[in-house]
Amino acid sequence: MSQVTIDTNEIDIVIAAFHSDLTSFLESWRPIFSRFHLIIIQDPDLKQDLKIPKGFDINIYTKSDIDKLITPSNSAIFSGYSSRYFGYLISKRKYIVSIDDDCVPAKDNNGELVDIVTQHIVNLKTPATPFFFNTLYDPYRNGSDFVRGYPFSLRSGVPCVLSCGLWLNLADYDAPTQALKLESRNLRYVDAVMTVPRKAMMPMSGINIAFDREILGPALLPGLKLAKEGKFRWETMEDVWCGLVVKAVCDHLRLGVKSGVPYVWRNERGSAIDSLKKEWEGVKLMEELVPFFQTVEFSEGCVTAEGCVMEMAAAIEKELGGKHPEVANAAEKMVEWVKLWKEVESRVLG
Amino acid sequence: MSQVTIDTNEIDIVIAAFHSDLTSFLESWRPIFSRFHLIIIQDPDLKQDLKIPKGFDINIYTKSDIDKLITPSNSAIFSGYSSRYFGYLISKRKYIVSIDDDCVPAKDNNGELVDIVTQHIVNLKTPATPFFFNTLYDPYRNGSDFVRGYPFSLRSGVPCVLSCGLWLNLADYDAPTQALKLESRNLRYVDAVMTVPRKAMMPMSGINIAFDREILGPALLPGLKLAKEGKFRWETMEDVWCGLVVKAVCDHLRLGVKSGVPYVWRNERGSAIDSLKKEWEGVKLMEELVPFFQTVEFSEGCVTAEGCVMEMAAAIEKELGGKHPEVANAAEKMVEWVKLWKEVESRVLG
Repeated sequence: MSQVTIDTNEIDIVIAAFHSDLTSFLESWRPIFSRFHLIIIQDPDLKQDLKIPKGFDINIYTKSDIDKLITPSNSAIFSGYSSRYFGYLISKRKYIVSIDDDCVPAKDNNGELVDIVTQHIVNLKTPATPFFFNTLYDPYRNGSDFVRGYPFSLRSGVPCVLSCGLWLNLADYDAPTQALKLESRNLRYVDAVMTVPRKAMMPMSGINIAFDREILGPALLPGLKLAKEGKFRWETMEDVWCGLVVKAVCDHLRLGVKSGVPYVWRNERGSAIDSLKKEWEGVKLMEELVPFFQTVEFSEGCVTAEGCVMEMAAAIEKELGGKHPEVANAAEKMVEWVKLWKEVESRVLG
Repeated sequence: MSQVTIDTNEIDIVIAAFHSDLTSFLESWRPIFSRFHLIIIQDPDLKQDLKIPKGFDINIYTKSDIDKLITPSNSAIFSGYSSRYFGYLISKRKYIVSIDDDCVPAKDNNGELVDIVTQHIVNLKTPATPFFFNTLYDPYRNGSDFVRGYPFSLRSGVPCVLSCGLWLNLADYDAPTQALKLESRNLRYVDAVMTVPRKAMMPMSGINIAFDREILGPALLPGLKLAKEGKFRWETMEDVWCGLVVKAVCDHLRLGVKSGVPYVWRNERGSAIDSLKKEWEGVKLMEELVPFFQTVEFSEGCVTAEGCVMEMAAAIEKELGGKHPEVANAAEKMVEWVKLWKEVESRVLG
């Protein structure tokens, strides 16, 4: 319904690098990324120097940058898929767009290249409507509106702080599902974006997201790390955990989360069958986590993301920590993350 | 994921006729409707005889059929858009597919005619997943599945009892929105269907729906009739009210509601600007209705749709009836509907 301005100075694109040669990845994104500032975090486990093509505005951070900021005992907090969170931490901009390095631009139903940055920012800069379901999808999108019967008092919506994009080709399945459907590819481009309703929990995927760092940053955190976590998406739970944290925080703070466009094209790597052993642990854990996150409550006076994270960490430690060491560890890391966030913030302000 | 069988003997297509000449309407639907049984309810206010083309299996019901079933003082319960509910009542089949007589078949993104009956029945015969949000839309649709992190214990879902379709060309806006956007047409075919999450309320539109009559029939009822109700969709609230009732009942009974495909193509009629005066009353009423329906609770022992409707009618009468005569009247009609439903059912069984 409204025109949105894309201000390059407000946006950081964050990428965690698992491969040393980023040439083909960045060339594929050049038409979309070249006018933005990129933050690349080299996975501390990746030993070779990164190969980056010319013509991008990029800051690269490596293990030594991470070690300067945190104590060596905690350095694992930023390894593997969690290395991207270091980028969220040191960014000084309002919005973060974050994608995995095995994705290239997708094409829409008209064969046009999908500009994920513009679409994510439009999602974030137009309101979300979590308190009532709109059958016509995002009412703020051009060509859409609120359906008959939608209460007028709820039409102004609330700020949208998280935009979760989707994936063509390889969808984000868990290892058991992918192993059962080795040949299955996601080819349906659903041209829609919608607010995830209040109190509906969802498993966020970190492959293709954007968020309002100023408001939500303290809740976009590396928490759960599985004992057998690997370097393929289906071997991780960090983003699923993060999504549960974020959604509970947003529901309390009356902020919105959207899911849908933009799409990216995900290329294949890894063997789902090989990964089956690793991921099973996380699958079982979800059964106990979900009831907790569906019912977690915050105090009335809790009005910031960092406040919510601290309260939630205490509740997790109390309710789930005794039974699951990795969950107790996640609660600890949440507290640590908020401390780090405040420390970095005070340096910038100081 | 699974193959669904379409059994013509299980399905009634219900249409309320506001125009005497149904030739072009039925001809447009012939490729899709000709193998099914149709129930046509002539709006009691329409005085001419209906004109129906040959080659359909149709039962037509008129004012005299309605008068045989109910006392003359209550005959207004089945007038205007509410006349279709008479069809729901006297059907003896498991599934109802119900559409407005100003709709013709839509085409999908590939230019194929949309078979609304098949898509609605697929939606109803595959489970719904109201307890957790799946970012990949309906996991039971061919080509889709549950996203990574979706709890396995929730993947079997619950029975889907209501499928709400959508509209191309003229979307289902209220009169104020349509009056502001006279030229606006809905041209985005979103190729998706999804479960409306538990506790998310939605304004059902009666234009293009299907439901499981055996399970949900007693809750698909004509309740709210506005004092100035007219013969255009944007002058009515009966379906919006019905949707609030149904969604609250489904949430309590652990049943599912889906929204999305199939689409129909809606032709224009009426003037949104002329209708503005009439509809304002319903728009204001929604502000008070929504908080009620969002929080209404049923007793634990309430395990059927009719039981829920009776409890809800009592709660509506108590909480809202004193302030709004039309709402008190709606509560009365809900009780009356359940009585009628049981009476018709006992005749069939007796």
